[in-house]
Amino acid sequence: MLADSSDLTGREKPVFQAKAFAAANPTAELAEAVIPRRTPTDRDVQIEILYCGICHSDLHTARDEWKSVMPTVYPCVPGHEIVGKVTKIGPAVTKFQVGDTVGVGCLVAADHTCPTCQHGQEQFCAHAAFTYNAPDKHGTAPVTYGGYSEAIVVEEEMVLRIPGNLDLAGAAPLLCAGITTYSPLKRQGVGPGKKVGIVGLGGLGHMGVKLAHAMGAHVVVFSTSPSKRDDALRLGADEVVITKNPEELARHMGTFDMILDCVSAEHDLNIFLALLRTGGNLTMVGAPEKPLPIGIFGLLFGNKTLSGSMIGGIAETQEMLDFCGKHGITADVEVIPMQHVNQAYERMLKSDVKYRFTIDMASLKA
Amino acid sequence: MLADSSDLTGREKPVFQAKAFAAANPTAELAEAVIPRRTPTDRDVQIEILYCGICHSDLHTARDEWKSVMPTVYPCVPGHEIVGKVTKIGPAVTKFQVGDTVGVGCLVAADHTCPTCQHGQEQFCAHAAFTYNAPDKHGTAPVTYGGYSEAIVVEEEMVLRIPGNLDLAGAAPLLCAGITTYSPLKRQGVGPGKKVGIVGLGGLGHMGVKLAHAMGAHVVVFSTSPSKRDDALRLGADEVVITKNPEELARHMGTFDMILDCVSAEHDLNIFLALLRTGGNLTMVGAPEKPLPIGIFGLLFGNKTLSGSMIGGIAETQEMLDFCGKHGITADVEVIPMQHVNQAYERMLKSDVKYRFTIDMASLKA
Repeated sequence: MLADSSDLTGREKPVFQAKAFAAANPTAELAEAVIPRRTPTDRDVQIEILYCGICHSDLHTARDEWKSVMPTVYPCVPGHEIVGKVTKIGPAVTKFQVGDTVGVGCLVAADHTCPTCQHGQEQFCAHAAFTYNAPDKHGTAPVTYGGYSEAIVVEEEMVLRIPGNLDLAGAAPLLCAGITTYSPLKRQGVGPGKKVGIVGLGGLGHMGVKLAHAMGAHVVVFSTSPSKRDDALRLGADEVVITKNPEELARHMGTFDMILDCVSAEHDLNIFLALLRTGGNLTMVGAPEKPLPIGIFGLLFGNKTLSGSMIGGIAETQEMLDFCGKHGITADVEVIPMQHVNQAYERMLKSDVKYRFTIDMASLKA
Repeated sequence: MLADSSDLTGREKPVFQAKAFAAANPTAELAEAVIPRRTPTDRDVQIEILYCGICHSDLHTARDEWKSVMPTVYPCVPGHEIVGKVTKIGPAVTKFQVGDTVGVGCLVAADHTCPTCQHGQEQFCAHAAFTYNAPDKHGTAPVTYGGYSEAIVVEEEMVLRIPGNLDLAGAAPLLCAGITTYSPLKRQGVGPGKKVGIVGLGGLGHMGVKLAHAMGAHVVVFSTSPSKRDDALRLGADEVVITKNPEELARHMGTFDMILDCVSAEHDLNIFLALLRTGGNLTMVGAPEKPLPIGIFGLLFGNKTLSGSMIGGIAETQEMLDFCGKHGITADVEVIPMQHVNQAYERMLKSDVKYRFTIDMASLKA
């Protein structure tokens, strides 16, 4: 980390400089940059980042692929699966101490007072800020900068505690992939006696398998590829169904309490609605760009439900981390140095990763 | 009613003859016919039908418009909104006595033992029989014959009790339109403090308005037609939004706890998903034939849910009837003689009814 500084570097608020990796424009590779971070204010926690997971959202944002809904402001520093150590705290911080192992997920701000926040769903607060590419209310920079950096400063309400028994590189993806899958599984009452399907065995799906298995459900992985069978079973699946085989699907029709669909590519959801039992639920955490055709009769016959779910609130994220601590759950990760991020993006596009890349931020200090 | 008879009229089981109105083929008008009804067996209740509501499903089935899923067997006697008096009971019947005012809805059989029945959802039991055009397990006829008839014989488990204070002509549509709208409103916890939208002010929609209002919710009717405003308010709506006016819609974005969509024509559901608050639910009871495009981002942002709901179970139907008795709720009906059913079908196709036709079965005795 560069020397801490309280200089007023052309701005009104004291900042320090931190090394990071940033995209300078939609087509540029990510490259080393120096970014400002605010010196901790009263309730801020300054964190030395040890690991940061790579989420597909990082790539979408770095390349401005979500232009229509959230145009990217450059430079862009992605990263919202952050694990690190507290190095400094503001004078009013009560929940954390220097040396604590902590995490930061997709959110770094919310108003904490609106009904949405009161219901523990800060991700939908009108004043929520995503960890990167959101307006920075502190004014340190035009937008928030994420976890591809040696340090970050975050209000204590948005900081999570990482259970001591977890491998930190594997724990990083819990902050996004973990909570994204945990929240809908929990909401649907997944547990012993429930039959749960997981569609797509990638970064999200492999967490869905581990979590649903730990919750005590009978877990079935749906995959287009027979090559994933052994790995799915190793991760905790009880069965694997190859969706290209109609007779395999037929055996499971009308039997699932819940199916968690982690696929963002265009695909047919009606098959999965047919696999649900009466009153069953299909939740999308994958985000196909184009509208998908849904047969309404498939919802009517059986009082079925199609839901969407987006990450989770702060309290639920802590609950998920504690659950993972209790059950010894982390993501399966391939640890890479920061300098390999561009190659990692290309491999992620080819689904050539089991199942998440995590950046070892020590590489940024070298 | 024709003279009761226990003759073995070419069949193995004792039957009697009853007057009815039947369609002889998909293009024939409904016309008077005589049909066999079984003489009550041990647990059967014989009912003199006083009123039978006309549901759009009657027309679909009479004209074989659901050929692909449920081909119609002719002659077809529609009608599943049945109200009448008990005229005879089998020796083992315990729940009803001769003279009781009773109802029969969409279902006349279920196995009562499967998990689906145990959860009170007989409509999804693998052994459920619809009131018309379902295989007749008693073998009286190839298929069940519905309520366009002077009499029906039904197992006591499938018979409902009609509260004494309700107008019987207006009570008949409760057996289908009533339970179809009550069940999803109840499932979604509609009550005081909730904002509920009703899409489409027809047979189903007008019941949805009355029921949601009686449950204590703030009720908003969505309509394409400003001409329905006064009537919607009279039925119990607090507000009416004309869906063709974008600025009216804009005022309500993100504010609904639940929207009940009663429209079977093709239409855009994504508008209604956008009107839901975080965690809100859109339930379809209308049945558009073709798949509808659903934007998945509209479900993800706000953890929203799209459901289907089909009628309701027996216990819940009784609960709905008791609720209607307590709140004095019946359908707004236009009472017609049986002989006018064909004209009523044509008017129903033009939505020229406020809001349900009910057949006065005394007309069949003349």
